[in-house]
Amino acid sequence: MNFGSDNMTGASPQVLEALIHANSGPERSYGNDHWTREAERMLAEVFEHDLAAFFVASGTAANCLALSALVQPWNAILCHRQSHAFIDENSAPELFTGGARLKPVRGSEGKITARALEETFARLPSDPPHNLLASALSLTQASELGLVYGPDEIAALTAIARSRGASVHMDGARFANAVAKLGCHPSEITWKAGVDVLCLGASKNGALAAEAVIFFDPARAKDFTNRRKRTGHLISKGRVFGSQFAGWLRDGHWLDLAHKANHACGLLAEGLARVPGVRIVWPPEANEIFAILPKALDQCLHSAGAVYFEWDVDALPAHESLTADEVFVRLVASFATTDTEIQAFLDAAMAR
Amino acid sequence: MNFGSDNMTGASPQVLEALIHANSGPERSYGNDHWTREAERMLAEVFEHDLAAFFVASGTAANCLALSALVQPWNAILCHRQSHAFIDENSAPELFTGGARLKPVRGSEGKITARALEETFARLPSDPPHNLLASALSLTQASELGLVYGPDEIAALTAIARSRGASVHMDGARFANAVAKLGCHPSEITWKAGVDVLCLGASKNGALAAEAVIFFDPARAKDFTNRRKRTGHLISKGRVFGSQFAGWLRDGHWLDLAHKANHACGLLAEGLARVPGVRIVWPPEANEIFAILPKALDQCLHSAGAVYFEWDVDALPAHESLTADEVFVRLVASFATTDTEIQAFLDAAMAR
Amino acid sequence: MNFGSDNMTGASPQVLEALIHANSGPERSYGNDHWTREAERMLAEVFEHDLAAFFVASGTAANCLALSALVQPWNAILCHRQSHAFIDENSAPELFTGGARLKPVRGSEGKITARALEETFARLPSDPPHNLLASALSLTQASELGLVYGPDEIAALTAIARSRGASVHMDGARFANAVAKLGCHPSEITWKAGVDVLCLGASKNGALAAEAVIFFDPARAKDFTNRRKRTGHLISKGRVFGSQFAGWLRDGHWLDLAHKANHACGLLAEGLARVPGVRIVWPPEANEIFAILPKALDQCLHSAGAVYFEWDVDALPAHESLTADEVFVRLVASFATTDTEIQAFLDAAMAR
Amino acid sequence: MNFGSDNMTGASPQVLEALIHANSGPERSYGNDHWTREAERMLAEVFEHDLAAFFVASGTAANCLALSALVQPWNAILCHRQSHAFIDENSAPELFTGGARLKPVRGSEGKITARALEETFARLPSDPPHNLLASALSLTQASELGLVYGPDEIAALTAIARSRGASVHMDGARFANAVAKLGCHPSEITWKAGVDVLCLGASKNGALAAEAVIFFDPARAKDFTNRRKRTGHLISKGRVFGSQFAGWLRDGHWLDLAHKANHACGLLAEGLARVPGVRIVWPPEANEIFAILPKALDQCLHSAGAVYFEWDVDALPAHESLTADEVFVRLVASFATTDTEIQAFLDAAMAR
Repeated sequence: MNFGSDNMTGASPQVLEALIHANSGPERSYGNDHWTREAERMLAEVFEHDLAAFFVASGTAANCLALSALVQPWNAILCHRQSHAFIDENSAPELFTGGARLKPVRGSEGKITARALEETFARLPSDPPHNLLASALSLTQASELGLVYGPDEIAALTAIARSRGASVHMDGARFANAVAKLGCHPSEITWKAGVDVLCLGASKNGALAAEAVIFFDPARAKDFTNRRKRTGHLISKGRVFGSQFAGWLRDGHWLDLAHKANHACGLLAEGLARVPGVRIVWPPEANEIFAILPKALDQCLHSAGAVYFEWDVDALPAHESLTADEVFVRLVASFATTDTEIQAFLDAAMAR
Repeated sequence: MNFGSDNMTGASPQVLEALIHANSGPERSYGNDHWTREAERMLAEVFEHDLAAFFVASGTAANCLALSALVQPWNAILCHRQSHAFIDENSAPELFTGGARLKPVRGSEGKITARALEETFARLPSDPPHNLLASALSLTQASELGLVYGPDEIAALTAIARSRGASVHMDGARFANAVAKLGCHPSEITWKAGVDVLCLGASKNGALAAEAVIFFDPARAKDFTNRRKRTGHLISKGRVFGSQFAGWLRDGHWLDLAHKANHACGLLAEGLARVPGVRIVWPPEANEIFAILPKALDQCLHSAGAVYFEWDVDALPAHESLTADEVFVRLVASFATTDTEIQAFLDAAMAR
Repeated sequence: MNFGSDNMTGASPQVLEALIHANSGPERSYGNDHWTREAERMLAEVFEHDLAAFFVASGTAANCLALSALVQPWNAILCHRQSHAFIDENSAPELFTGGARLKPVRGSEGKITARALEETFARLPSDPPHNLLASALSLTQASELGLVYGPDEIAALTAIARSRGASVHMDGARFANAVAKLGCHPSEITWKAGVDVLCLGASKNGALAAEAVIFFDPARAKDFTNRRKRTGHLISKGRVFGSQFAGWLRDGHWLDLAHKANHACGLLAEGLARVPGVRIVWPPEANEIFAILPKALDQCLHSAGAVYFEWDVDALPAHESLTADEVFVRLVASFATTDTEIQAFLDAAMAR
Repeated sequence: MNFGSDNMTGASPQVLEALIHANSGPERSYGNDHWTREAERMLAEVFEHDLAAFFVASGTAANCLALSALVQPWNAILCHRQSHAFIDENSAPELFTGGARLKPVRGSEGKITARALEETFARLPSDPPHNLLASALSLTQASELGLVYGPDEIAALTAIARSRGASVHMDGARFANAVAKLGCHPSEITWKAGVDVLCLGASKNGALAAEAVIFFDPARAKDFTNRRKRTGHLISKGRVFGSQFAGWLRDGHWLDLAHKANHACGLLAEGLARVPGVRIVWPPEANEIFAILPKALDQCLHSAGAVYFEWDVDALPAHESLTADEVFVRLVASFATTDTEIQAFLDAAMAR
């Protein structure tokens, strides 16, 4: 009954197999190996676009490196007030960008709305050099609150950004879950919708540790090898990342895994919604459920061995609030979540 | 015939096995997993000392994070003029430390000598805040030029550093090779000899991507988790590093691998020394050979399929120089180097 | 009719005189001169406390250097959402601190309230190393919105900060105006009330370019000379700052100037409040007026030659808002503001 | 008898007069004042070229801001091994550039030679992203060792830099002294000779605290206002710098002052050369003398009240060395140096 996070599972068999396979024999180091080349090729195929891809071990590194390529140290980056970059990355964004500042978009929705983005841009103080010019927008797809932006929503947001001279970054730690949910082509919610750089996460969805920073305009990646090296993210054995991505992308495996995770999440949410006293805050669209539980239920579930975490109440939408007897929690499904686990969880919930 | 670098091999079977074994089942994320705990425990056992250990994916990250814990941004770090940190890490040392400066120790030996260190300290301009106070010494063991510091040499150097108020960092990318060569206990060339923090590299000697930053005084590691996180080096699945180290350390495997590499290097050096026109610059003490070859021989070896690289002539000792017909090269053996490879190489060399 | 800013005037005659006097003869450079010593001595006398004082040319430098001495790069600094440090210093706080983050305190008052500070601390995500620990509170006295904190208010805020392990910085760009308003001893709103470091601004109130960073616990200034030097704020001729401060502090001149500015501000506010359609947003307590004017009046005043600036509507308290026919403006008085100027302005306002 | 440094004098009467004159009346803040405009205009006139000029209070700030505009954080800057930027600026170059590295040019001359520059470029390791690409050359005119580069020397050095893709910065803390010595037009040793950005220092030669960063191609100054602001070097009262420069440049005053300083230096050197046991290391070309004195003479001069400082022996050319009875010293003349001072000094020297 582990719904703590999708980063608590290991790799999928197919990904692990690829890594094992890549282990034998000598390869050129520092990303000049065959596996890295192969992963790059496959990404270009998946996105149907020329691209420059770079692999790193953590989402922190991927996102912060990507942002550093889009902004100057004296710029601001607009993001959701609950975004991982803003809340959970310590001061990594500042370090990687040399001092740029994340500015949360106004509003309390689970996703950035066009209206809130417009208003935020309009209200930013803009008397240089005293104020910071916002030169990037960071979107998370699927969002940190379990919602998914449709192609039109993304296009609308990137159009606003573009009109203000800002580039667009997408934190795709759960990009696969979003594609699986939307049933669209990956290009439709990235370069076709105006995204400049995508951080495509594999670690939460089948890999051990592998994230790709993908520039749809390779010219923007000009200094990236310097940035990656000086932050310590160029590892000597590139095959480690290349093979994971190759295994992950082969035959649509990455989307199969995401479908499994989303499906498990849906089952869990459906069941949970029927438990008395439970409120699902947003109908889940990917593999995360945000719910308000009676404290007694929460204790009972933990006692039964369920693993999941309390969540920041600041993430709640403006119209929601907790009573003293409630807790706000997040539950996450992964490709490894089993029907048995879900059933056991729901049984424990109903048994109270 | 691959003598390009010890980072061109994959993992040893035992290390890979451990990683595969660790892949199954849920584990807590961000280094709070069982494998990370196990690796920490084993390191304390190996070094026979309380310690705080942190795992990262690259040597760049390990060394620069370690240095950042020892110095302030307005300090200098003394190091060998050919050290990896000084030459091959782009501007990572500056980024991680917030601006500290590497200063090469005077002299042109393959290792830092006590005399050169004394002289460098004595000659540093020291009128604060105009000049930079040197507050750390960085040693590489085995050194970048294939030599190994004995326990007494290290103790002498750290004593000088200590008397100047400087802490001591050891870049141990090839630490296992040094221990194998010296036949000493790992403690004798680290904490017993005055080393404050060791970066213990497994990637070049049996792992895929795993380096440990080891503080022998855990109090000095106080801010390390913040440093690791903000540089993007905290990965979500700690088991990736923990299991590699556990497999690597188990039953002395790490030293077995190093012995193999050193032995292969010795065979290669012996044979090469007999090839007409070849000069071995320093008798190899670990798994690297630095040699001057006639250009014709060099071409012939490359044509035969041998992989190895030309080296920076600035690394040569003062008494050596190249003629127009010679090249300065480095050859590296690893645990995976076979007798067959070595023989084929020597045959090609002799065949000319 | 210049009410644009108190930084648009020159130096007071007494300050200029001191600078001229200090110009003759040789002096030791880099702050080792007699004038710097004298200014330090006078500050210790004024504050009746041991202190370490450092002089720089800009408020940006003073405040950011002070903050950098209180926080680590992975910390957060709580401040008012309208504070100069947060809004008007580009990315200087990030640069000087190595990446620390300013976090606005919740609420929309003209000053930070104890309740808002408590709530902000309580709601900060606090799961290290993912989140940033708030280790400093920055207060502005007089506040950017023209209000003054009383000794008890400051003591209450610093007590909250202290209980959370946070140090306290005071941006005193208009500190003199606050002291003049309160009629208290400078110590009562600084070290006696729990302030760790004060940035005492002279530039807005009689000097040309001179700000002092004052540590009431000299031990906290340990690295300050390194910080000041590496940011380029150690000038060679220390007498430039020392003499300005000496002239400014002599015989209570600094408070005389502040009284003049506050008095002029009071006259202007009184008159303005009587102009039909004008709303004074906060009754001015120092030398700044924040007011909502009918647009027609605004245009008429500018046509008459009045200089003052529109202000960010985000600074408005929650209960205030603008109609389409109104503008939100700031007017600032200085020691150089004359009764004639004020009368001319009010005549123009009434003439409409 | 003060020959300690040209930064130990105050401002010249003409510069001080200009500052006093600029003090009255309101002026727009943050460099939008008439005096700043006037100084910019005069600089364009003096250099007979379009330019973008920015004023700051210290040479540290001027030089480091200028360098930060020429390089990326992952670049290297070549400079003389005795340059002020390399030796005396703490870690300011690293901080301002975000981590770029100063690399001393080989050789031990008092100036960078074309041959040494060529050799240094040729020997730089150049395997990106491991090594740092050298993208700037920093020259000091007059050099820190009292020598002056002729127009042809500068052109030769900038041509080498250009051919390697490197921009050229000139530290002109004593630029006026160089122009006075050469008798050339200021353009001949700057933009006509291939210099991209000049830091023109007035503080050592008649001003109180005023340095100009001058871009001969204004397009390269694109981000400069952001850089200046975020380092705290935009002061509110721009007239402080503008008026000093206006007074300094008016009617060739800056060169008159430099001629005086150079002349005084020449007299002092001539006399000193006649003192038994004294060796002048380089015949002075600007306003600095570097000499080897018998220790006994040195003590006697200090006893007589002479102020001057011992210098770093590493600055000595390769062919020079000190005996145990000698000291290496620097003496500096300024516009304020009097014949009487010089005579008193020489009398004391001869009296021994």
